Amino acid sequence: MKVYFRTLEFKTTKQVQLVDITREVERIVRESEVKNGICLVYAPHATGAIIANEHESGLIKDMENKLKELFPRGAGYLHDRIDDNANAHLASAFVSSSRIFPVKDGELVRGTWQNIFFVEMDGPRYSRRVVVEVLGE
Amino acid sequence: MKVYFRTLEFKTTKQVQLVDITREVERIVRESEVKNGICLVYAPHATGAIIANEHESGLIKDMENKLKELFPRGAGYLHDRIDDNANAHLASAFVSSSRIFPVKDGELVRGTWQNIFFVEMDGPRYSRRVVVEVLGE
Amino acid sequence: MKVYFRTLEFKTTKQVQLVDITREVERIVRESEVKNGICLVYAPHATGAIIANEHESGLIKDMENKLKELFPRGAGYLHDRIDDNANAHLASAFVSSSRIFPVKDGELVRGTWQNIFFVEMDGPRYSRRVVVEVLGE
Repeated sequence: MKVYFRTLEFKTTKQVQLVDITREVERIVRESEVKNGICLVYAPHATGAIIANEHESGLIKDMENKLKELFPRGAGYLHDRIDDNANAHLASAFVSSSRIFPVKDGELVRGTWQNIFFVEMDGPRYSRRVVVEVLGE
Repeated sequence: MKVYFRTLEFKTTKQVQLVDITREVERIVRESEVKNGICLVYAPHATGAIIANEHESGLIKDMENKLKELFPRGAGYLHDRIDDNANAHLASAFVSSSRIFPVKDGELVRGTWQNIFFVEMDGPRYSRRVVVEVLGE
Repeated sequence: MKVYFRTLEFKTTKQVQLVDITREVERIVRESEVKNGICLVYAPHATGAIIANEHESGLIKDMENKLKELFPRGAGYLHDRIDDNANAHLASAFVSSSRIFPVKDGELVRGTWQNIFFVEMDGPRYSRRVVVEVLGE
């Protein structure tokens, strides 16, 4: 059994922003030399999330807009009395800060239109991290 | 350590539809002969999702209606300029295309009212696939 | 390879309530003596969920309010003809009854502001259970 960890680190430039990390995650899966197992993509942040979907510029904007619509900023939240990002916490809590993928024959399993994104909900931030864990044999 | 993969394949018949795959997933867990571990149920599709909940005909309709309400079709999405299914992508991204379950004493762990469903959001489709991975010992 | 299971059991006191189980989950991870692997936190309930976010009293209330707003009770659901908790089922299905965390160097990996909560959506209940599974080496 192998367990392989790597941490991605990057900055974000907008308040709400999808950052495509597919290439980096797939590189880590190959580096791990795990043949069959799972890949956990985990953001240790309470104001960000991880999702998988198509990398198409219009759709990326649609996803950002939907996040703003479902979790609008400054909508009278109690947490905003001590900070201004309750909406980002809500999005992170409900969308989830992780996604998990099968690893088969040394490759991450995903659909043709499933890219992996870190979801920034409270940017811009100088440093965001995503833990990528590959576990298997 | 064992890692066991099987892929379910089926068609869908409606635009928004819940397909109960509980029996098939449980059969695969037993076939795998994994005693203790996890079962990852993963849809490699950007317009579908996986959820767990009760198989009651009224509730199934309620879940389909809630998906249509939260992610309405044709609501002025940018992605709809090149396709007509942005709402299905949004549902897939936010609900998630996977669920994961414990496997204990050779059985998938789930509550009495937790059946496993593939969520079709852009049907009907001739072929939908769900990857079932059982990992453990 | 080790697979370690423990079940938390507790009661809830409100209809919608977040119950912080972080300390218990972290204790189980240490007890398991798994050095590197994953921790699956799974609620075998179709009217509850698991989320990770900050334990701040205002934000906890914001999360409870958002759940009530996204999944309002008694909004004409078909399932309510046989029960009165369709909204709780919807929240459980879409938010998900599990979260998964990396385990590294014997510790659960989470962000500073990521506590782990059981989400009660149909309380009060005399007994709610959460399965905590630690798998690794």
